[in-house]
Amino acid sequence: MAVVRQPTRAGVRDAAAKVARILPPTPLFTARIGGVDVALKAESLQPVGAFKIRGAWHRLTALDDAARAKGVVAFSSGNHAQGVAWAAKRLGIAATIVMPADAPATKRDGTLALGAEVVSFDRATEDRVQIARSLAEARGATLVPSFDDAWVIEGQGSAGVEAAAQMAAAGLGPVTRIVAPCGGGGLAAGLALALPDAGVTVVEPEGWDDMRRSLEAGWIEPVGDDAPPTACDALQTQRVSPLTFDVLSRRGAEGVAVSEAETAAAQRWAAERLRLVIEPGGAVALAALLAGKVRPESGTLAILSGGNVDLAAYATVLRGG
Amino acid sequence: MAVVRQPTRAGVRDAAAKVARILPPTPLFTARIGGVDVALKAESLQPVGAFKIRGAWHRLTALDDAARAKGVVAFSSGNHAQGVAWAAKRLGIAATIVMPADAPATKRDGTLALGAEVVSFDRATEDRVQIARSLAEARGATLVPSFDDAWVIEGQGSAGVEAAAQMAAAGLGPVTRIVAPCGGGGLAAGLALALPDAGVTVVEPEGWDDMRRSLEAGWIEPVGDDAPPTACDALQTQRVSPLTFDVLSRRGAEGVAVSEAETAAAQRWAAERLRLVIEPGGAVALAALLAGKVRPESGTLAILSGGNVDLAAYATVLRGG
Repeated sequence: MAVVRQPTRAGVRDAAAKVARILPPTPLFTARIGGVDVALKAESLQPVGAFKIRGAWHRLTALDDAARAKGVVAFSSGNHAQGVAWAAKRLGIAATIVMPADAPATKRDGTLALGAEVVSFDRATEDRVQIARSLAEARGATLVPSFDDAWVIEGQGSAGVEAAAQMAAAGLGPVTRIVAPCGGGGLAAGLALALPDAGVTVVEPEGWDDMRRSLEAGWIEPVGDDAPPTACDALQTQRVSPLTFDVLSRRGAEGVAVSEAETAAAQRWAAERLRLVIEPGGAVALAALLAGKVRPESGTLAILSGGNVDLAAYATVLRGG
Repeated sequence: MAVVRQPTRAGVRDAAAKVARILPPTPLFTARIGGVDVALKAESLQPVGAFKIRGAWHRLTALDDAARAKGVVAFSSGNHAQGVAWAAKRLGIAATIVMPADAPATKRDGTLALGAEVVSFDRATEDRVQIARSLAEARGATLVPSFDDAWVIEGQGSAGVEAAAQMAAAGLGPVTRIVAPCGGGGLAAGLALALPDAGVTVVEPEGWDDMRRSLEAGWIEPVGDDAPPTACDALQTQRVSPLTFDVLSRRGAEGVAVSEAETAAAQRWAAERLRLVIEPGGAVALAALLAGKVRPESGTLAILSGGNVDLAAYATVLRGG
């Protein structure tokens, strides 16, 4: 069995340098929450509307010419799909994306618009990992996982390098606490590697808080069969990866779960106060702070990780206040 | 009678330098519209949610200590109010804002949160200019008009200096055409001064296109008594100012009017494609481009001028697609 490459801080720095050459830093907002100025990084304003563009870029640029010629395959509910499609288009690589049939139309359309081939699957009856693996094998293409990959994790961590520089420039001091949405844990693990002196809190929807339970247990626990429906399509990961779990576990990261109502309230807050469209999964870190489930402290950095919404569903959230 | 100070390009450059010392540049997005890459400047992401912070800062910093001690008075439907309140708070100046009683709650709350005193008036029966003038006279305070003032116009123009630098850095070339929302014309006139080689198109809601008619007539024409209701509260100006009209008229600026439906479509487009909350009045320039009323050309710069929405009304717009 091949040795699995582990993500490293040096890799995050390399990723940050590569990302900085093609993408301007996403805006960093400051907001007073719980009497403290909290830094909020708007990864929703990336060209594909999510931080996933970072990991995809770091991964795809690491492929050699032979691998690039054979294309890439990814499975994703949408944001990773668009990140891979964006990077592939820019590098002239063919991309095939395996997406659930019930993915938000915006994410599907965005992926198609970037020139990727989309293969649909039924979330209830089919295994996307298996479909993607079969496709990749048949074509000799490279599988680009959405979080279970050292390059992808390092790439997502570039957001932390960027945010630390912005916070220093804004006089907000060093990052003392990272608060990040968590699906498979790629973003949180990357940030943890990027910022070795900061505390790490991952935030998940209630019932989908498998990373929280895993960190408490000391081993990986999957999402339960009784997980309730959640609007956070980007965070519906059944099982985290040893790569992300190990990084977070060794750092003593802790997890917090937020309710659907808390997430919706955070989306409304972001629309009204920051004038940003944030998708449910992208708003959970902010939700945890606003709900008092994470105590804001000086040097807190929260990630607004994505902004790809279904307009009708988003309108319902905005009316719900 | 005192000679009215005229806005100048040198004043705009001075304003841009002053603004750059306290506010980071607002993000510039690129979007493919009509086969051309158009630059969209998100002034909605200013701390108060609109470009008005620029003019307010340039005006208030120009006051001497004696004037600062007596405070400032402004009349505004909301965005200028928040801009003046923000600048006044930062400079330790007392601010009184005369606002219509039907101004969006967000704008009123934002103004109060910035420590300003708010005086309400009835848009139908009272004259806000008269109320503001009386208040200013009684207190010896300085009246800060929302557009009829050289400093305010110069301040708004700083957005053009900023955008030109961003477009050059992004390889988008020089600005060939400015497309700007127009209420009293302060933003458009400031941009025209900032970018002397660009064509200028101002965009107004249908029926409120008094600047368009004025530019065609060669003299200032007010809004007609039969102007229909508009969601663009920020652009409901009854009469433009000689200061803004003269700048735009001499530059051969032209006007375009957009429908409420076109404006709403642009708000939806901005939410879905840019993940930005844009208020109706802030979306009219984008609406003109998307509706084909302004032909996009290489070097086009459109301003997304504000993002302060009433959430319920905004949700209705998002559902309307």
